[in-house]
Formats: sequence, C-alpha cells, structure tokens
Amino acid sequence: MKPAANRHFLNTQDWSRPDLDALLTQAAIFKRSKFGDELKGKSIALVFFNSSLRTRTSFELGAFQLGGHAIVLQPGKDAWPIEFDLGTVMDGETEEHIAEVARVLGRYVDLIGVRAFPKFVDWTLDRQDRVLNGFAKYSPVPVINMETITHPCQELAHILALQEHFGTTNLRGKKYVLTWTYHPKPLNTAVANSALTIATRMGMDVTLLCPTPDYVLDERYMGWAEQNVAESGGSLIVSHDIESAYRGADVVYAKSWGALPYFGNWAPEKPIRDQYRHFIVDEAKMAMTNDGVFSHCLPLRRNVKATDAVMDSPRCIAINEAENRLHVQKAIMSALVS
Amino acid sequence: MKPAANRHFLNTQDWSRPDLDALLTQAAIFKRSKFGDELKGKSIALVFFNSSLRTRTSFELGAFQLGGHAIVLQPGKDAWPIEFDLGTVMDGETEEHIAEVARVLGRYVDLIGVRAFPKFVDWTLDRQDRVLNGFAKYSPVPVINMETITHPCQELAHILALQEHFGTTNLRGKKYVLTWTYHPKPLNTAVANSALTIATRMGMDVTLLCPTPDYVLDERYMGWAEQNVAESGGSLIVSHDIESAYRGADVVYAKSWGALPYFGNWAPEKPIRDQYRHFIVDEAKMAMTNDGVFSHCLPLRRNVKATDAVMDSPRCIAINEAENRLHVQKAIMSALVS
Amino acid sequence: MKPAANRHFLNTQDWSRPDLDALLTQAAIFKRSKFGDELKGKSIALVFFNSSLRTRTSFELGAFQLGGHAIVLQPGKDAWPIEFDLGTVMDGETEEHIAEVARVLGRYVDLIGVRAFPKFVDWTLDRQDRVLNGFAKYSPVPVINMETITHPCQELAHILALQEHFGTTNLRGKKYVLTWTYHPKPLNTAVANSALTIATRMGMDVTLLCPTPDYVLDERYMGWAEQNVAESGGSLIVSHDIESAYRGADVVYAKSWGALPYFGNWAPEKPIRDQYRHFIVDEAKMAMTNDGVFSHCLPLRRNVKATDAVMDSPRCIAINEAENRLHVQKAIMSALVS
Repeated sequence: MKPAANRHFLNTQDWSRPDLDALLTQAAIFKRSKFGDELKGKSIALVFFNSSLRTRTSFELGAFQLGGHAIVLQPGKDAWPIEFDLGTVMDGETEEHIAEVARVLGRYVDLIGVRAFPKFVDWTLDRQDRVLNGFAKYSPVPVINMETITHPCQELAHILALQEHFGTTNLRGKKYVLTWTYHPKPLNTAVANSALTIATRMGMDVTLLCPTPDYVLDERYMGWAEQNVAESGGSLIVSHDIESAYRGADVVYAKSWGALPYFGNWAPEKPIRDQYRHFIVDEAKMAMTNDGVFSHCLPLRRNVKATDAVMDSPRCIAINEAENRLHVQKAIMSALVS
Repeated sequence: MKPAANRHFLNTQDWSRPDLDALLTQAAIFKRSKFGDELKGKSIALVFFNSSLRTRTSFELGAFQLGGHAIVLQPGKDAWPIEFDLGTVMDGETEEHIAEVARVLGRYVDLIGVRAFPKFVDWTLDRQDRVLNGFAKYSPVPVINMETITHPCQELAHILALQEHFGTTNLRGKKYVLTWTYHPKPLNTAVANSALTIATRMGMDVTLLCPTPDYVLDERYMGWAEQNVAESGGSLIVSHDIESAYRGADVVYAKSWGALPYFGNWAPEKPIRDQYRHFIVDEAKMAMTNDGVFSHCLPLRRNVKATDAVMDSPRCIAINEAENRLHVQKAIMSALVS
Repeated sequence: MKPAANRHFLNTQDWSRPDLDALLTQAAIFKRSKFGDELKGKSIALVFFNSSLRTRTSFELGAFQLGGHAIVLQPGKDAWPIEFDLGTVMDGETEEHIAEVARVLGRYVDLIGVRAFPKFVDWTLDRQDRVLNGFAKYSPVPVINMETITHPCQELAHILALQEHFGTTNLRGKKYVLTWTYHPKPLNTAVANSALTIATRMGMDVTLLCPTPDYVLDERYMGWAEQNVAESGGSLIVSHDIESAYRGADVVYAKSWGALPYFGNWAPEKPIRDQYRHFIVDEAKMAMTNDGVFSHCLPLRRNVKATDAVMDSPRCIAINEAENRLHVQKAIMSALVS
C-alpha cells in the first residue's frame, strides 16, 4: 500500500495527490471505527525537541488504538546536542552524531516522529530543516514530521475537517483565506506554510491575507503554492486588504507568524506587528464571508487571534480539526508500516 | 453503574455513601484479582501541573491492568499558562483557554486526571480550585481529582486500608486522630482536608489535633465534616492537647500543613511551626492509643513526622495505604467509564 | 528458572557463568523472534535519576514486546532527594526514605530498573552505589542496574555482539583491548569497569590501554578482573603503549573516563587529559589489529573518540551492540520474573 516514493512523511508536497487522498479516506474510516491491528506489535519513537501535548497525545493514543506502542522521547530544546555534519571534530557541544541517533532508534522501532522547531536566530539555517532531514537521511525506518518548519499532519487534519463540512469532493473552487493575526510573540511560520501548501493542492482559490509584503511566506512555500495552482487549478493571491479578502470566503484559517525579513532580529518587527491587532478574526469580519467556517491549529489566544464569539460559534471547526489529528496520524502511521 | 450525578470524581463529598461503598468494594475485588477488561481500549490523560511518582505509577499501571492506556502529560508548574476566564484579551502570559484544552483532550481520551497544587500565595484564589473546576466545566469526559486542594483518591485508599485492618463494617465509632506534625516547609492542606472529610463520612469519632487554632482547616472542610457528623453519627472535636487526643485512639493519621492565616506570608508562621516539633508521632504517643494503627499518605520525613520505630512497626499501614491507591483508582476509573 | 541467588541484576559478577550464558542464549532467541508473553501483565518501573534515550527506549519497548508495561519515572538528578540512612532526622533536604520509595514501588510493579550516575564529587561516596544498593535492599521485587558505576546491561549487549561476530563459543583467548580515549569532560567509569569485568569473565586476553597509571580503574573492578582471569583463563595487562596494545587485537572497545585520583577535583586533570587526544581510534591503529572489530557503548563524539572512517567501517559493531540492549534486557527481565 505504501508507494515506494513515500518512504517518509516529511511534507505533503512529496506525496502524490492520490496517495494523500488515500490517507484522508483511511483517516475518515478510523474516525468512524477507532480500533484496528494495523500497528500490532509495531512501535514509534516520538522525538520531541520541542514540547507538545496535543501532538503527543494523538500519536501515542493512535498507536495504542491500532495495537502499537509509542515511546515518547523528550530530549528538550537544548538537552541533546546532535551533530549533523560529517567530518566535524566533535570536541565542542555536540555529544552524538545524527547517524548514530537515527540508526540506533531505527533498530528499535518501526517509525520515528520528529518535532523540531526553528531556533529563530537565522532563517537561512532553520529553513534547511536539518533535524528532520538528518533523521530522514540516516533512519532505516520511516520518519514522520511532527512539526518543524512545516506541519503536514496538521494539514491533513485541517483538510479532513473541511471535507466533513463541505463534502469530500467539494473543496475545489472554494474561497480560502489564510489570514495572519496578531500575537505578542513572533511565531513559527510552519502552519502558515502548510496551510498555503495544502489549500492550493486541493484546488481552492487561496488568498494569503497579511499586513504587509514583509509577512509573505518563504519563497519555497510560495513556489509550492504556485506549482499547485498550475497543477490543480484554483488560484493564489496575496492581499493586504481585509475586506476584499474576507468577502465571500468559504474558509477562514488564522495563524500568526513573525515577518521573515526580521528573523532573528525581532526587536524592530515588534512595533510593526503591534499595528495590526485589528487583523483579529471577529464576528464583523466573519459576517462578510459566504457563511464561511473558521479554523485554527490551536493553541489560540482568545480575543487576540479570534474573539470568544467566533471561537464559540457553530462555524468554528477548530476542535474538529484538533480531533482529526488523531485520525490522520493513524492513517499516516498505518500507511508507512504497511 | 455510574450514577448520573457522578459525572466526575472531584471530591468524595459529591458522591453518595452507597456509591463510595461500591467503589471500595470494587477496589477490594481488584486487590484480589488485578486484571480485567473494564478499560479495554479506553484511555486516560493524566495532567500533572505538579510532579508525581506514586500517583502517576498507580494510575498508569491501573489503566494497563484493565486493558486501557494512560497518557502522562506534564506541563509543569509554570510551563503551560492557561486562561480560565471568558472575555479576557489573552495578550499576556496565558497561551490557551481551558475551554480548548479540555475540549480537545476530551475528544481524544475517555477520562482526564488532574493534579494541580495550590500556588501558596493567596488562599482565597487557591481555594477556588480553578484548574480542576475548569477541566470539569469544559471537559466532555469525566475528570478525576489527582490532588489539588483535596485528595479524594488518597481518602479511599486510606479507608480501604482501615477496612482491611478493622473489617469493612467496623469503622463507625472508632476513635480517629488526625494529627498535625512538624515539617520544615508549609505544606498543602489537601490530605488533611480529605482525611477530615472521609473520616467523618465513615462515622468515626474524629479528633483534629493541631498546635493552635491557626492550624484549624478551611471552613469549607470543617463544614463538610460537621455535615457528615450530622448525617453519619460519630463526632468531631478540635484539640490542641496531645495526650487526650491520643488516649484510646484506634487510628492515628499524620500530616503536616501550613497555617492558613499565614498563607502566602509564611515567614512569620515559620517560628510558630518550629515550636511544635514535638507533635512527631513516636512510640510513647502510640503507647497511649488503643493498640491503634498509624498511617500517612507519603512521602514522609522519618524522625520528623514519625519515628523510625513507628514507621517500621507492624501497626504502620502506610505502605498498604499507598498500595491501595492502585486498587481504588482502578475502581474509580472503571466506574466513570461504565 | 531464576536461580535463588539472582534476585536482582546489579552486576554480572553476582551471576554464575551458566546463568549469564543462559541470558545470552535467550537474548539471541529474542533477536530472532521478538514477541512473547514472558512479561504478560507484568510491569517494570524505570527510575531514571539521570536521563536516557537508548536505555529507556530499549527497556520500554522490550516490556511491550513481551506483553508487559514499563513506567518511566524521571525524578531528575536533584528533584527527588532520598534519604538512605536509618536514624536520620530528616529535617534537611531529603523528603523521603529509600525504604518507603522501594517498598511502595515494589507493591505496584514486578521489576524496578535504576539509573543513578555518580555525583562526581567524592569517589569514596559514589563507589558505594547507594541508590542502587538502597533499592536492592528494600525492594520486594527484583532490581535491575540501568547504569550506575557499572553498566551490566551494556556488558551483555556487547558480548552478544562479539558472539555474533566470532561465534558463541569462540571468545576465549581473543585479544581484547579496552582503550581509554579523549573526551572534553571527565566521564563516568561505569562502562569501562563493566567492559573489564565481562571481557575477563569470558576468558579473553584483555589489555587495559590508558595514558598513565592514573587512568587505571578502581581496585574493586581490577580485582574482579583478576579473579575472573584466575577462574576463566585469559589474562589481564595494563598498558600505556598504543602500538603494542593494538597489535594483533581481535576486539577494540573504546571509552573515555576521568582519572580517579582527580575525582571531584577535575581542574588539574584537564591539562593531563588534553595531552592524550591521540588515543583516538583511527584507521592507522585499526590496521595494526588482527582484522579486529571496533565497538563503543554510544553516544560517541566522532573524530574525538573514533574517526568517521572507523565508525562507518564494516568492522564497527557499535550499532549492533546498541540494538542488542533490547534483546539482552528482555532476557534479563524475563529471567527475573520467571
């Protein structure tokens, strides 16, 4: 069942559309019937360089419900200094080379999940996604991205929630707004990169709404989105105008992130960001949509990113999306070990 | 089997006496025969805002022995700043609202256990038990108190140990001394509140022995105890006299706690507390009892709260009580999912 | 199946040679067929006073594959101050006595694993191995050493890897070099103590290669090695000459450790250690061997302890040894509960 190309689950962009559709179909099946033996006797190491509650719970529970076992490893952000280059004389901070880490873990378990956020100092370094790619290079078993600079598990959970609302085959041509929102800290672009990637992949008409050109996403993900539009139909526009972006939207997906030109030099970005608190998702904005649904990857600061009224509205599908993490991850794990 | 009122297990006082007796009966059955399928395929999230070894081991093992799976979440004391009020503009420290936390966890698991100690700054705030009550308010699945400002799981483990010693139906009318003891730090009143609550509930003649009126417990728990005496018989007296308290006691239960009038302003309480090191449970005091048993919730500082001789005596049932945590928690989890 | 003497697995030296051989045989069986019900319904508490990824993964997974369940307790290096002496008035830092810790855990689980590294301040204290021996004294269930001042699980994994290479009965008379290597920090002697112990136990001709007499190991382990040579044949020499040590070696096992005379007073040892970076295992040294194999317990700093070329050579069996941790620990757990 696993196509040869899909050795790992690093990004949805590496997977064919039929293979992604198969994952979504299987996830919907698991949602209706949660137990199985797809992972009977199998194990997954969940390697968290950054902490997690939802991701960890959903992976650990998913393994259990399919007869497998998850081992949660939390080396911590700084606690396990790993070397990624060959040839380095490791007499500094790094205690172990990724080659040994991945090879040994791969002797024990059947799957490896990796969460490794950016360091937020140098985007040219962070965008190499070295921890994830290092595991993928050396691991003898499939590697799953549990959020690094993209978050493909969240993508599938999001799309499944949209399919539940609009119907499995009805996403093409829907107006999808990915809106930046304010947050007091400069956050990771991972979920924004992912939303842009998967929304265009599904053939939706995508508007990336953000305050200024500085908030446009990295060219890699803008490029994936353009490639997806070319292949799947749909469209992509960048907008800084709230009203035209929301007008007629079927989907509003909110996320905050730091502006890449200020990456690692965040002080001057803060007063810019502070000017755009009005990007909050509120009832007035949602009223401009085509009876649109709202979602967010969580955690969400209420009344900063979205108002209480939006969060507690029946049009909010964020809790469904969070639940779907469990189902899509079971589909991903099952596909990779089969 | 679960009475409609018992959606959660927050305090024994919320449960009827027959329902508590049923839990104790089931716990004794699990003690004789430890495996079952009462939690087959079920899961519990154990949310520890404060760390734990015994509570965590007994819940995790109990789930395993009944076919379920526990997921241990340790956000840490300060690591997961949660908002409890609605309407707050969350642009400060809090990253997520309890509504989302509880709703999402409740989509994944079948039960949620919560440990959240007081902050020890403002008792009027801590006595609201906001973390526990927040989970109980928003969670779609049953919530279990794993120790906050009360410790109802410990209560049942304690009573089961007493029933093992005295016989299931013979606690009524026993003389029960809850004695404060010295400890270098001002500790939580949770176990003391709980001991007072359950000992009176069982119809025992309860003496709360403490150095001064400042060490009397919060009026909520004193009130529960008085209500229990009115309903179950037995009696409640507060004493500051060691000899008369111990004389003829059948049960001595020790615990240290900080005096509530000094809550959050502990410096002036320390010299007061330091005067009462002689409240230690020793052989001379135990010799005044009616061949009484001794117990404590653990951890215990030997030769501060109780002497080596008392701890290593056959009249000490603290290890039995600790073991019983496993059995009573299996009964609680089973009752809540049934 | 468990000989009465083998209540615990604290050191291989406590076990008879036939019992060790039985563990190795069973480990090889588990390597060929990884599932079983030897631990069905059983549980093990893994108590980590020091963090771990490999040990934790291999024990947790081993329990799962045999039908059991591991509970990972990470009190942290300083977080759970335990008293080991009786009679102490515990009004200082220690919160709980080992008697209660071990007795309560032993009521819950069937096995207890303990990892507790030295404190690196006073070797006369660290060499008492008080945490491990405290658990062994008070626990009602078998205790397994997961690395303290020796590392017997690593020993068996190492020997199994050698048996896989040389044949099960062919280790006697092999030339075995345990070589000190440089590392920027003064490390634990545990694995070196263990390698010396088990290599002599297996009747190999053992050379302990180290820079100066200061790097010779503690007399307890030197004594065990001499006793083993007397009983098993083979030989033991200490050498400070790299060339003669490597010449004709069948096995090169590398480890760094701090010199015991400087224990706790590491500043003056650092410039001494820094002179011996050339003890690195490289291709030139390996070329002097009898087509020897190389191994190391991991983690390993590449190009400090061994070069990339040695690590990536087919003569490196370190990954096999790491994998074997899983298999030997399953054999140990199974033997102790049977």
